[in-house]
Order: sequence, then C-alpha cells, then structure tokens
Amino acid sequence: MQRWAILLEYDGTGFVGWQQQADGVSIQSIVEHAASTLAGQPTPCTTAGRTDAGVHAEGQVIHFDLARPIEPEKLVLALNFHMKPHRVAALRAAAVPPDWNARFSAIGRAYRYVILNRRARPALAHGQVWHLPQPLDAAAMHAGAQYLLGRHDFTSFRAIACQANSPLRTLDRLDVRRHGDTIEIIAAARSFLHHQVRNMAGTLKLVGEGRLPPSAMADILAACDRRRAGATAPPEGLFLTAVRYAPAVFG
Amino acid sequence: MQRWAILLEYDGTGFVGWQQQADGVSIQSIVEHAASTLAGQPTPCTTAGRTDAGVHAEGQVIHFDLARPIEPEKLVLALNFHMKPHRVAALRAAAVPPDWNARFSAIGRAYRYVILNRRARPALAHGQVWHLPQPLDAAAMHAGAQYLLGRHDFTSFRAIACQANSPLRTLDRLDVRRHGDTIEIIAAARSFLHHQVRNMAGTLKLVGEGRLPPSAMADILAACDRRRAGATAPPEGLFLTAVRYAPAVFG
Repeated sequence: MQRWAILLEYDGTGFVGWQQQADGVSIQSIVEHAASTLAGQPTPCTTAGRTDAGVHAEGQVIHFDLARPIEPEKLVLALNFHMKPHRVAALRAAAVPPDWNARFSAIGRAYRYVILNRRARPALAHGQVWHLPQPLDAAAMHAGAQYLLGRHDFTSFRAIACQANSPLRTLDRLDVRRHGDTIEIIAAARSFLHHQVRNMAGTLKLVGEGRLPPSAMADILAACDRRRAGATAPPEGLFLTAVRYAPAVFG
Repeated sequence: MQRWAILLEYDGTGFVGWQQQADGVSIQSIVEHAASTLAGQPTPCTTAGRTDAGVHAEGQVIHFDLARPIEPEKLVLALNFHMKPHRVAALRAAAVPPDWNARFSAIGRAYRYVILNRRARPALAHGQVWHLPQPLDAAAMHAGAQYLLGRHDFTSFRAIACQANSPLRTLDRLDVRRHGDTIEIIAAARSFLHHQVRNMAGTLKLVGEGRLPPSAMADILAACDRRRAGATAPPEGLFLTAVRYAPAVFG
C-alpha cells in the first residue's frame, strides 16, 4: 500500500463544494471516482480543506492509498484522464509516508480573494471574481487588515455552522493590494475557521467603501460577535492557493 | 447624431466570432442588439478588428451613432444591461467626431497569446489558454520572434482566406515571456493580417519544442510561403488587448 499526495487545481463553479451533498456534484466525487477507477476498488480521498460551493483551488492537496505501484507522472495522467471533462486537474503526485495526512500534516494554508472593482461586470473573469462596482480604497482595506494579524479569537469572522473546537486562530498574513481594476486579498495562516476568509473580505469591503474606518477591524475582532462583522463575501472570488507541509511534499 | 466609441471586453468562447455567420451567435449581434434596443432603431456597429470564433478581447473598440443625447456612464450601463447574460461587457464610452472610425482611425493593435505549458490540462483557465504539455523553451521562442520585427511581406503567416490588399505589415513588438507555467506572446503592430498572430504563435511553438532553431523564423518569413510556417494556433489562447488611436479616445 502506498499513500499518495496529489496537488489539485479546480474551478468550483457549478460544484457543490469539496464534500458530497444530497444534490449536485462535488469535487470529492470527481476525484474519488477517478482514484477508484484506476485502483479498481473504492478509494476514499482526504482533503487538506473542504472548500465551499463555488470556491476555486490552485493548490488544493489531497491524499489516498493505492495498492498497486505506479509512477507519479502516470498517476497524474491517469487521474486527469478519469476526471475529464470536469474542470478539475491533478498537477502533481508525490509518494508520502503511510501516516502522512493531507489535512493533519498541513502546517499552513494560503488563500487569495479577488475583487473586480469597476463598473462593468466581468466578461473574461466571470465566476472567478467578486464584482464590486463602487470604488474601493485598497490602501484603507490593507490598513484595516493589519489589525487582524496574530493570534486571536476570530468568533466575529466565523460561520455559525463552523465545527472547529476553538475560535482561536493565528493569522500570519492579510495583505490587500490593487492591480488596476483588480483588488487581491492574500491570507495565510496555519488554518482558518469556516468562512473566515470570506467574512474578513466582506468586512474589509466596508472599509474600502469608507463605511468603516480601518481601526473598526480591531473593534469588530474584539467584540467576538459575528453580527458586528460584514456579510460573507461570495464564494466565486475565493481561491485556495497553497497548502504547506514540513518537509515540503511537492518540492 | 453623435458618434460613440465603446471599449469592449468579451470571452469569445461559444461565439462564432465578431461577425455574424449563418449559424451561431456573434459578438456583433449581441452588441448591435443592445445598441439598437437603446436607440429604438437599427444601429450598426463597426469594429476595430473582426476577431475569430473563440478569440477573446480585453480592449476591443467599436463605434456606432446615436440620435438621442446620453451621458457616457449611462450609455455603458445601458449597453451592459442589454448585453446580459452574455460574456460581453462595455467598459468605457467616449463621444468621438462624426468622421472617426473604430477601424480606419486605429493606429495600433496589440494582442496577447497565452500558452499554458504544463502536463495537466487547465482547470481554472479552461478556454482561455492553448494547453501545450511538452516543455517549451521560451527564451528560444523570444529569440526567434525577434527575426519577424519590422516591415516585411508576411505571406508565410497569412491565412489563405485573408482579404487584405497587401501582405506587407510592420511588426513593432513580438515578445515571448515565461511566468511560471504560463508563456505569454505579446504582439503589437499598426495592423495584422488574418490569423497572423495565431500563425506566428503556432510557428514559435516549433521553436519552443526545439524542432526549429530560432533563426528558422527568418527563413520562413523570407520564403513567403504559408506551407513553410507552423499550424495556426487555436483561437482560445488569443486576446485582443488594446487598440490605439491618436489622439487617445479613452484617456
């Protein structure tokens, strides 16, 4: 038996998210179908993080076990063959120790949240940005974001349905940068609460609009009250960009 | 009567191209439907360049005439309203003199051709890149591209169906750059022959694969024979990025 780590890219549009739901197609079902087909037996897959419906991934990581030997390059090709025509692609495969776990071995996760900040709706980036027509002050958003860095109780930015044992998280990076009409929010932490990045993005939007001063982010954080923060930003702007392990898995 | 210049973005996927064909939906039909609806009468639109089926635009320019006065911002909003839900968006509108012409007043056009150069097929950029799994030498492609700069007979890179009077064109820029898994070809000229950018891209691919030395680009150009150059690169990697006018129209 060999445990394999797989680096995945997907467009979350039209999927119900990573996890299987009663209705709709999940990323998990696409990946497990491919792994099971090539294994010739049911092959469950474990993910580093269960992305929500509509959320994308550039660098999701999963693991599963295979009985028969296979070269990493061939495994990538076989998975991609069986995942066609869905917008899910295996980028890399790496053999890992039997006790390695895509979720529990992860020591860091990074997300990008993309806002298209112009009047006209997106034609090219449709489904891969949050379209906000009113002008946003990205510098104010960045200033506000810095109040969230460090170890805090993130209850104000946590989904009601969040199943984590603790609301404590350590936010290592929350940068907001404008590139032309696009505003990118880059977030990095060991792990995030459910909806944390989208709730931070939805609150930073209020700062960008001038409806909240940057320092309000500190007050909202300290309140530990979900009702104080902004609405959850829509899933289509969110990308899981990387999951980190030590030692690194994909070089 | 007021002539209007409109800056357009579109995803060419699923369209038959700018121009109406017997079957399928054209970008032109979407834009003319919107302009005609808001004008209350048939309103023909003239484009800076007729993009082929599947080709995208970040900065296409068109013009049409409207009898009733309207603010530029309102014109953009009204066009976008009437173009929904198609992936065509008006970005800007500018009043121009009655003899101004989106096609004949243009003094420069720029294109980007995007190659995704990795084994795995594109999940996120599906329909917006040419996927080439074999490793390409972008530096060799760039070296080869430089042989095409300047004023030449581009018959070797011209579609058989090209309707231009002359095969002479002046290529101002042809840069090839790698950014991670992505290779971008940036092309700029006063104007291009039909399929010229895609035929240059398809030939530079052969240089990138090592099947042709960079200097072969000079030989192919000099031969003035379409059969000497590579196959036409697929439309989904091509973006019309900008059309230039003097004076500038959109500031």
